[in-house]
Amino acid sequence: MTSVTVDPAPSARAVPPALTGVVPPVCTPFTPEMEVDTRSLQRLIDFQLDGGVDGLFVLGSSSEVAFLPDQHRATVVDTVLRHVGGQVPVLVGVIDMTTLRVLEHARRAVSAGCAGIVATAPFYARTHPAEVEVHLRAIADRCEVPLYAYDLPVSVHTRLDPQMILRLAADGVLAGLKDSTGDDAGLRDLLAARDDAGLTGFSILTGSELTVDSALRMGADGVVPGLGNVDPHGYASLYRYARAGQWEQAAREQDRLLRLMRIVHAGSPARMGRNSSALGAFKAALKLRGIIDCAVTAPPQIPLDDSEIDVVRRALTAANLL
Amino acid sequence: MTSVTVDPAPSARAVPPALTGVVPPVCTPFTPEMEVDTRSLQRLIDFQLDGGVDGLFVLGSSSEVAFLPDQHRATVVDTVLRHVGGQVPVLVGVIDMTTLRVLEHARRAVSAGCAGIVATAPFYARTHPAEVEVHLRAIADRCEVPLYAYDLPVSVHTRLDPQMILRLAADGVLAGLKDSTGDDAGLRDLLAARDDAGLTGFSILTGSELTVDSALRMGADGVVPGLGNVDPHGYASLYRYARAGQWEQAAREQDRLLRLMRIVHAGSPARMGRNSSALGAFKAALKLRGIIDCAVTAPPQIPLDDSEIDVVRRALTAANLL
Amino acid sequence: MTSVTVDPAPSARAVPPALTGVVPPVCTPFTPEMEVDTRSLQRLIDFQLDGGVDGLFVLGSSSEVAFLPDQHRATVVDTVLRHVGGQVPVLVGVIDMTTLRVLEHARRAVSAGCAGIVATAPFYARTHPAEVEVHLRAIADRCEVPLYAYDLPVSVHTRLDPQMILRLAADGVLAGLKDSTGDDAGLRDLLAARDDAGLTGFSILTGSELTVDSALRMGADGVVPGLGNVDPHGYASLYRYARAGQWEQAAREQDRLLRLMRIVHAGSPARMGRNSSALGAFKAALKLRGIIDCAVTAPPQIPLDDSEIDVVRRALTAANLL
Amino acid sequence: MTSVTVDPAPSARAVPPALTGVVPPVCTPFTPEMEVDTRSLQRLIDFQLDGGVDGLFVLGSSSEVAFLPDQHRATVVDTVLRHVGGQVPVLVGVIDMTTLRVLEHARRAVSAGCAGIVATAPFYARTHPAEVEVHLRAIADRCEVPLYAYDLPVSVHTRLDPQMILRLAADGVLAGLKDSTGDDAGLRDLLAARDDAGLTGFSILTGSELTVDSALRMGADGVVPGLGNVDPHGYASLYRYARAGQWEQAAREQDRLLRLMRIVHAGSPARMGRNSSALGAFKAALKLRGIIDCAVTAPPQIPLDDSEIDVVRRALTAANLL
Repeated sequence: MTSVTVDPAPSARAVPPALTGVVPPVCTPFTPEMEVDTRSLQRLIDFQLDGGVDGLFVLGSSSEVAFLPDQHRATVVDTVLRHVGGQVPVLVGVIDMTTLRVLEHARRAVSAGCAGIVATAPFYARTHPAEVEVHLRAIADRCEVPLYAYDLPVSVHTRLDPQMILRLAADGVLAGLKDSTGDDAGLRDLLAARDDAGLTGFSILTGSELTVDSALRMGADGVVPGLGNVDPHGYASLYRYARAGQWEQAAREQDRLLRLMRIVHAGSPARMGRNSSALGAFKAALKLRGIIDCAVTAPPQIPLDDSEIDVVRRALTAANLL
Repeated sequence: MTSVTVDPAPSARAVPPALTGVVPPVCTPFTPEMEVDTRSLQRLIDFQLDGGVDGLFVLGSSSEVAFLPDQHRATVVDTVLRHVGGQVPVLVGVIDMTTLRVLEHARRAVSAGCAGIVATAPFYARTHPAEVEVHLRAIADRCEVPLYAYDLPVSVHTRLDPQMILRLAADGVLAGLKDSTGDDAGLRDLLAARDDAGLTGFSILTGSELTVDSALRMGADGVVPGLGNVDPHGYASLYRYARAGQWEQAAREQDRLLRLMRIVHAGSPARMGRNSSALGAFKAALKLRGIIDCAVTAPPQIPLDDSEIDVVRRALTAANLL
Repeated sequence: MTSVTVDPAPSARAVPPALTGVVPPVCTPFTPEMEVDTRSLQRLIDFQLDGGVDGLFVLGSSSEVAFLPDQHRATVVDTVLRHVGGQVPVLVGVIDMTTLRVLEHARRAVSAGCAGIVATAPFYARTHPAEVEVHLRAIADRCEVPLYAYDLPVSVHTRLDPQMILRLAADGVLAGLKDSTGDDAGLRDLLAARDDAGLTGFSILTGSELTVDSALRMGADGVVPGLGNVDPHGYASLYRYARAGQWEQAAREQDRLLRLMRIVHAGSPARMGRNSSALGAFKAALKLRGIIDCAVTAPPQIPLDDSEIDVVRRALTAANLL
Repeated sequence: MTSVTVDPAPSARAVPPALTGVVPPVCTPFTPEMEVDTRSLQRLIDFQLDGGVDGLFVLGSSSEVAFLPDQHRATVVDTVLRHVGGQVPVLVGVIDMTTLRVLEHARRAVSAGCAGIVATAPFYARTHPAEVEVHLRAIADRCEVPLYAYDLPVSVHTRLDPQMILRLAADGVLAGLKDSTGDDAGLRDLLAARDDAGLTGFSILTGSELTVDSALRMGADGVVPGLGNVDPHGYASLYRYARAGQWEQAAREQDRLLRLMRIVHAGSPARMGRNSSALGAFKAALKLRGIIDCAVTAPPQIPLDDSEIDVVRRALTAANLL
C-alpha cells in the first residue's frame, strides 16, 4: 500500500490553524470539448479572491468532483494552487468510494501543496459506523495535512455519527467538518458539544447557503456555499456583517442570497436531476457574469435550455448582479 | 474528452454472442501488505475454470472493486485476462461515479482485451432517469465491446427503469443485464417483456445466489454468484441440472448452496457492515479450501475474528467442501 | 386496556391448522357515495369461491384497508364472514399504527368469528426490532385466533427480522407469515430455516403475484395474490398444477397471469400513485367482468380515465377474461 | 360518506386568526393500566398554561397519537378542551392513514370545539403529490375549523411540496403549517415565499426544539416543541425574548434548552427506538417534576430503566428544573 506521508512534522496537525470564514466550493469550468478550462478557472479564482473569500475548496460537489477523471482533478488542483499562491488556504476534496482510493487522491493533493483535504464516509460499499471511523483514521494517519470530514448524506447515503466526530476531533484526527446535512438542529447540538469539550481548534463549517447567519450565530466558523461561486462578494459581506454583530444587515444579505439561490431550480425536474439543474445554473450565471467562457456541465448531466437560462438571467438581474 | 473507441466494427455489437451460464464475480485476493496477490488470483481462476464456469466477471462488488485503487484494478484485469487466455469470456466491471470516470476504466478494460464491460447507473451524484440513459449510451458509443448494465440498488441507491433497459437492448446499446435487485418478480416481468420484444440476443443474468434454479426456469440466461467463488463446482452443477431439465436435482443443489450462503452472516452486525462480513467469509472460505493465501479484505473493512472464521469452517464442512 | 381474549382454549393456537393454497386479498367495492357496496362484495366473494380459492383475506392492502373508516371495516368483516359461512377460512387484516389500536381491530375481528388475523409491524412511529416483537407478542397474547405476520416494507418502511419470525413461530406466537417483501431469496432462506427447525405448522404465503410457481416449488404454502380478485380461477389452476407437480402447466398459467398483472400500470405515474393505479385497475377489471357495480376507489386516490380503463379492457381480452 | 361540516360560516376560514407563539404538543399521561390519566393530564395543562404557552396541540406525535385508540383520543380531546376552557387555542391532531379515516377524527375534534386541526399527508398507502393535495383539500372542505398541515417526513415517509403548501395557503385551504422536517433552509425559503406572496395570515411554526430563536428570526410565527412539555416556562421565555428583539438572551435560553433536550437520548439505542427513548424521557421528567403520576408509555414502547431515568434526573438538575 502506497504511503501518503509527506510531511512528518506531527506538531503541524496538533494545533491546526482553525479554518474560518467563507470557503466557496469552486466550480470547474470546462471547454466545449470537456477539458478543464484553466483560463476560466483562473478568472473564477480571481473573482473569488476579489470577492473577499477566506479560503477555497476545490473538488467538492459543486466542482463536479464526481464527474471528473483523475487527470481533470489533477489539472484543477495544480491550476488553483499555483494561481492562488498561498493568498488563502485551499482545501482539496478527495472524494472516492473507499480508503485506498481516497488515499490516492490525498497523496496527490498533499504533494501539490494543499492546506487540507476533505473526505466523506465510504459510499457504494455498505458501511458500518465502525468502518467509517477506521476509514477517517487511516486517511489522517497517512496525510500530514489537516483532514476535514464532509457530511453529505444526500450523496453518501449515510450520516456521520456526532459522537464519532467529537472523538476524532479530540484525538486530532479531524481538523474540522463541512456539515452539508441541512440539519441545523444537529449542527447546533454539535457546536454546543464541541464547546463543552473545549475543542476550540476544531472548525465546523456549514454547507447550507440559506442559513449562514443563523449558523454563524450558533457558533459555526464559516460556510462553504456553492452559490458563493456566483456571488462571493455577497457571502463575504454576509460573513463580515455577522462577525461585526450586525445581524440585521446579515439577515438582509442572506435574504437577497436566498432569493438568488432559487436559480438551482431553473432546470425542469421532468427533464433532469438536481445536479444538472443546480450546477447548470451556477455555471450559466458565471457565464452571464462574464467569469467563465462556457457553461457546459460534465456528462451525463442534462444542459439547461434557453428558457431555463433566462430564468437564471432574470434572477441575476433581480439580485443586482448583471 | 478521450475517445475509447478501439474496434470500429459496428457489426460486432449488432449480434453479440449471448452470455450464458455461470459467471462468478471473482474475488480479489490480497497480500498482507494489501497488494493484489496475483498467484492466489491465478489459483482462484484455475479453481473457477476447473469448477466448470462459463465466464468470469472481474471488478464487480465481490471483487471489492469499490475498494481497489486503479493500479490494483489494472493488475487484476491483466492477470486474469492473461491467465484465462480466452478459455472463457471475461467481463470487467467499470464501476465509478459518472460517465467520464467510467470511460477511463472502460478504455483500459477494452485495451486489455476483455469480452465485455459492466456498468452501473451513476452514483454519488443525484441522477435523473434521463441521465442514466445518457450515461449508458455514452459508454456504449465509445466502447466497441458489449456493454452489460448492472442493477445494484443496494449500492447505487437508484434502480434501472425496465422500459429503459428494453429500449437500450433494442437499440443495441446494451448486450445484457446483471440483475442484483433481488426482485425476482421484476426479473420475470423483464424476461417476459424481452421475449415478447424478440430481443433474443439480450442476456439477462441474475445476481441472486439463492434463486438460481427458479431464475433459470423463468428464462434467465445465467447467474453471477458471489458464492461461486467458494463453490464453483456447485453452481456449475446447478446450471447443468437446470439446462437438462433435472429440476429436482437442481433444487437440491440450490438448497445445499443456500445453506452454505449463510456464511455471509458470519461477521457480527454489531461490529461490521455487510460487505465486511460477506467478503470476509468468502475469502476465509477460499483460504480454508487452500485456494488463496491470505483472507484479508481491503480497508476500511473489519476482519472476521477467530470464532467467526470458525462459523465459516463449520459451514464448509457441512457442505462437504472441506 | 381492553382485553381481547375471546376463546381461552390454549390448545387452539398450539397446533393451528396450517393455512395453504390461494387466499386472495379481497377488494372492497364501494357505492358511488363511498359506502361499502355489500351486494357487489357478496358477488365478489361468490366469484372467488367459484374460482376455487382456499381462503379469503379481507382488510389487506388490496382491500384498501388503509382507506377504510372503522365502520366500513366492520361492514366488510360482517358481510364476508356471514356470506362465506365457513366454506373457507377468512383472515382479517388488523392494520393500524401500533399495539392498542391494532388490538381494537383484532377484538372486533375475533368477535365476528374470523379464522385468523393479520398484523404488520408498527408504522408511523419509529420502531426498534425489539418493539416489533413486543407488539406481535402482545397481539397474540390477547387474541385466541391464529396470528399471521404481514411483512410489507413498501408500506411499513421496516422489514421483519427473519430470526424473530422463527422465534415467534417456535413460541406459538405466530401461525404464519404473508411475505410481501418481493425478496424471493429471503423467502427461500426462511422456508429452509423453517424446515430445519421443524416448524411444520407455520404457514408461509407469498404476496407476489408473479412468482407463485417458484415460491410453491421452494416450499411456500400458498399465495395471497391481489390479482386473484380479477382471476381467481387462474390462480387456483396455477396452485393445482403446482401441487400436482405439473410445473410446465403451472409456468404457462403464471406467464398468462404475469401479462395480465400489467394492468396495475394502467394509470399514468404522472397523475397518480401506485395504489391508485393498481387498485383502480383491479376494480375496473372487476366491473368489466360484471362482478362489481362501481369501480370507484377511496379518496384521495385518483381515478383511472377512459383511456386507462381501455388498457385494462384490452388486457382482459388478451387473457381470455372478457 | 359522512359529512363533517359543522359550522357553515365560510368567512371563518377566509381570515383565520394567525396562530403564533409557543404551542406545545401535549404528552398523554397514562395510568399503569394504560388508561388516560385525566388528573395528570389536567395538571400538565395547568403546568403549560402557568408556563405561559400561547396554545396547545393535543394528539400530535409527542402525545403518542399513533399509540392511542380512538376512545383514548376522545378522552384527551374532551379533557383538554374542557379544562382549558378557551384560555388558549387548542389544536387537535387528526393523524391517520388516509382521507376518510382522517375525516372521522376531524369530525370528533370539530364537534368537541377545537380551534383547529392538524393533518399529515397520507401514509402507509403509497401516495402521489396530487393525491396529497386531494387529501388536504377534502379535509378542509368538510371541516369548518382552520386546517394546519403537518410535515413530518420521519413518520410519513414523504415530504410536503412547498409549492403545494403555498397554493393551498393562497386558496384558503390551509391556515398554517407545522414544519417538522428539520430542514431550516427549506423553512426559510418557504417563509420568504410566503411573504413574497403576501400570505400574511398563514402561520408557519417550527417543530424543531433546538433552533427556535433562529426560526423566529427568519420569520416563523411560533414553535411546537415536544420539550415544552418538560419546560414550558423556558420556551415561553425564549419566545418573549425573541419577540422583544433580545436575541442574546433568547440564544442563552435556547442553549440551556438544547442541553436539556439531550434527555431524548437517555434510552439505549441497543434496546429501544427513538420514540421510546424520547417520550419515555419526557414523561420521566414530568414525573420527576411532580406533574404526572406515572411515566409509562404506550405499547410496544420499551420503558427506560433506572439508570436511564437517572440520566433524565441529572439533566433536569443541570437545567435548574429540580
